[in-house]
Amino acid sequence: MRTQVVIVGAGPSGLLLGQLLSRQGIDNVILERKSADYVLSRIRAGVLEQGTVNLLHEAGVGARLAEEGLPHDGFSLAFEGRLQRVDLKGLTGRQVTVYGQTEVTQDLMEARQAAGTTSFYEAVDVQLHDFDGASPRVSFTVEGKRRDITCDFIAGCDGFHGICRASVPIEAIKTFERVYPFGWLGLLVDRPPAAHELVYASSPLGFALCSMRSQTRSRYYVQVALDETVEAWSDQRFFDELRRRVPEEVAAAVTPGPSLEKSIAPLRSFVAEPLRFGRLFLAGDAGHIVPPTGAKGLNLAASDVHYLFEALREHYVERSDAGLDAYSAKALARVWKAVRFSWSMTNLLHLFPEASAFDKRIRRAEFDYLAQSQAALAGVAENYVGLPY
Amino acid sequence: MRTQVVIVGAGPSGLLLGQLLSRQGIDNVILERKSADYVLSRIRAGVLEQGTVNLLHEAGVGARLAEEGLPHDGFSLAFEGRLQRVDLKGLTGRQVTVYGQTEVTQDLMEARQAAGTTSFYEAVDVQLHDFDGASPRVSFTVEGKRRDITCDFIAGCDGFHGICRASVPIEAIKTFERVYPFGWLGLLVDRPPAAHELVYASSPLGFALCSMRSQTRSRYYVQVALDETVEAWSDQRFFDELRRRVPEEVAAAVTPGPSLEKSIAPLRSFVAEPLRFGRLFLAGDAGHIVPPTGAKGLNLAASDVHYLFEALREHYVERSDAGLDAYSAKALARVWKAVRFSWSMTNLLHLFPEASAFDKRIRRAEFDYLAQSQAALAGVAENYVGLPY
Repeated sequence: MRTQVVIVGAGPSGLLLGQLLSRQGIDNVILERKSADYVLSRIRAGVLEQGTVNLLHEAGVGARLAEEGLPHDGFSLAFEGRLQRVDLKGLTGRQVTVYGQTEVTQDLMEARQAAGTTSFYEAVDVQLHDFDGASPRVSFTVEGKRRDITCDFIAGCDGFHGICRASVPIEAIKTFERVYPFGWLGLLVDRPPAAHELVYASSPLGFALCSMRSQTRSRYYVQVALDETVEAWSDQRFFDELRRRVPEEVAAAVTPGPSLEKSIAPLRSFVAEPLRFGRLFLAGDAGHIVPPTGAKGLNLAASDVHYLFEALREHYVERSDAGLDAYSAKALARVWKAVRFSWSMTNLLHLFPEASAFDKRIRRAEFDYLAQSQAALAGVAENYVGLPY
Repeated sequence: MRTQVVIVGAGPSGLLLGQLLSRQGIDNVILERKSADYVLSRIRAGVLEQGTVNLLHEAGVGARLAEEGLPHDGFSLAFEGRLQRVDLKGLTGRQVTVYGQTEVTQDLMEARQAAGTTSFYEAVDVQLHDFDGASPRVSFTVEGKRRDITCDFIAGCDGFHGICRASVPIEAIKTFERVYPFGWLGLLVDRPPAAHELVYASSPLGFALCSMRSQTRSRYYVQVALDETVEAWSDQRFFDELRRRVPEEVAAAVTPGPSLEKSIAPLRSFVAEPLRFGRLFLAGDAGHIVPPTGAKGLNLAASDVHYLFEALREHYVERSDAGLDAYSAKALARVWKAVRFSWSMTNLLHLFPEASAFDKRIRRAEFDYLAQSQAALAGVAENYVGLPY
C-alpha cells in the first residue's frame, strides 16, 4: 500500500491534519493503536483558542462547534478568597470557546468517515522505517495481519507515549522536562457549572478549577499529591474539598452530583527538539506536553498542525520545501512561549510542597500586582486567548 | 535631651526623612554609627524613579539633581547577543533619572548642615529603649561620652545590619528571605558610558550591566560566584569579561580605564514584617533588601519615607494616627511588589548554577515573548519606572 502522508495517531492533531490534507487532495492514512470508542472515551481539554476554532472551520468541521460551543469573554483567578476577573474580550478583543476535546474528536472522526478516508484503528506494533531517507515506510499489525505503507512523509501525532518520538535515535533528539510534584484530580458531572466562566483558584489547601463542557455539564479539578488514588476520593469528599478551595460565592454555586468520570493526571512540562527528523514530523503531545493550567495543550497541537499542514500543502501544491524546512523552528517558537505561560500559571496557582515562606509571599505579590496592573492582566489575557500563529 | 523623632542612620532614607520633617517644623535628631565621609564613600544605586525625584524636590534638595541628573527614556535588555529596548517613555509616559545615591546623600547632608539640624555621626553603641511604651528613648556614645535622647518616635533607617530591627523581640517579627547563589562585582571608572542608556545583559557566561553615574563616569557590573575576591579581578580581566557578556555593538563601545572603585556585593531578597513595633518604625534597607536588578532599593527606601513622613505629619499637624497605624501595611504592599519585580528580573537575567536545561529554555522563551509583546514590555516598564505610591 502507498499514500502521501501516514499519520500516526487518531487524536485531535492526527484527525485534524488528516482532514486538512484530504480537503487539499493530499492522500493520507491514519493509524491508531486504540479503538475509536476508546479514543472518544478520554476526557481531556475543553477550551479552544480562536485560532483552533478557525482551523476546525477550515477543516470543514465547524458546524456543531458553532452551534454548541460556548464563547467566553473572560475567566477568573482567585487567590485566598479574592476573585480577579481577566477580561479577555476587553483586553485583547478576542474570546475563547468552551467545547470539549471529545466533541472535537468526534466531529473530526465523523467527517473522516463520511469522506471515506482510510484509517486503521487498533493498529498495533507500529514500526517506522527509513524516515531519514527519501522513501519512508510504516509497518503495523491489524486483526493479526502484518501490513505495510510506503509514503512521502510520516506525521507523528501519537502523543507523549507514542512510537514516533521513540523511533528517533536518542542522539538526534534533545528533551527538556519539568515534572511537578502534584497532579489534578478531575471530576465530570451532569450539573450546571458553578460559574458561567472558568475559575482558577489558588488556596492554602491547594489549587482548584471550576470548568465546564457545556451549560449542563461541569468539569472540576482539585490539586492532589502524586500518591493519591481515585478510590480515596468519594464524590462527596471531592465536592467538600473543592468548596473549601474556591471563593465563598463560587462554593455556594457548586452543584454536586454523581460523577460521570473521575481520574488523576500528573502535571508535566516537556519539549523535544527538533520536531523534524528527515521525513518524520512530530506534532502535538508527541513533541511537547504542558500542564493543563492555561488550557494550552490542545491549542498547541492545533498550531503545530497548522504549520505542518501549510508546509505539506506548499510541498505538494507549490513544490516548495521551505515550509517543511522551517516547520520545527516555527512550531517550537510558539510551543516554548506556551510552555512558559503554562509553567508560570502552574507556579502561580499551585501549592508546592517545597515552597518557602518567601515563595508564598511572592505568589501573593503576583496576585496583588495583577489586581492593579492592566499590563499584567493583558499579558495573561493575550497568552490565554493564544499568541498569534 | 529631647526631640520629636530620633532617626537612626544617615543614609538616604534617614536624611530624606529628617529633611522632610524639618521642613514641617517637626524636630528630629539623626544618629549615625559611621562618619559622614564614610557614608559618602559608599558607591550604591544610581537610578531614581520619578516619585523619588519628586520627594527630593519636596525635601528642598532638587536643585543639583535637576541640573546634573540624566533623564532616561528607556533601557535595554540583552539576551544571547540580541538587544531589546524597553521604551519607558513610550510605554508608561514616564522616565527615570540617573543620579548617584552618593550625590543624593551629599545634597541631603549639605541641606541638613545648612539648616543646622542636629546630627551625631560616629555615634556608637546605640540602644533603643521603651519603644513599646509612650515615651521611647535612645542612648548612644559619642566621643567617649554616653548620651540619651527621649522622643515620641524612632525611625529605623539604619540598613540591613542596623540595630533597630535587631532591637525588636524575635517573636514580634517575621522575616522572608532568598539568598542568590552569586554576587555582583562592580567597577566605577571615569570614562564615558558604553551606551547612553543602561544595558542589562544575560549571556551564557552570566549577567552583566552597563550603567553610569554621569556622562563621563561609568558603572559596570559582572555576575560572579560568591567565593570570588576583588583581588582576583584586575581591571583588564574585568573589562575583558564584561565585553564577552554584552552584545557586540555594546562591547565595542566600552571604554576601559583605571577603576576608581571595585567591590563585590552579594544579592539578597529580604522582607521583615511588620515594619512597625510600637513607636519604632523601620524604613528602607532596615526593613527590606532587594537584589539590585531593577534598581528598586533606593526607590523603595524613598517610598517608605514618603509613607512614614506623611504619617508623622498627620500625627503632629492633623492630630490623627491613621497614617501611623496604616504605615506598615501600606509600605509592605508596595515593597512586596518591588521585591517580586527585582526577584523576577534577577531570575530572568542571571545564570543560576542549579538551572536545568528546561529552566534555560524557559528564560529564552521569556525574552522571545518580551520581544513580541507590548503587554509584557509594558509590565516591565511600569515596574521599572515605579508603581504608584
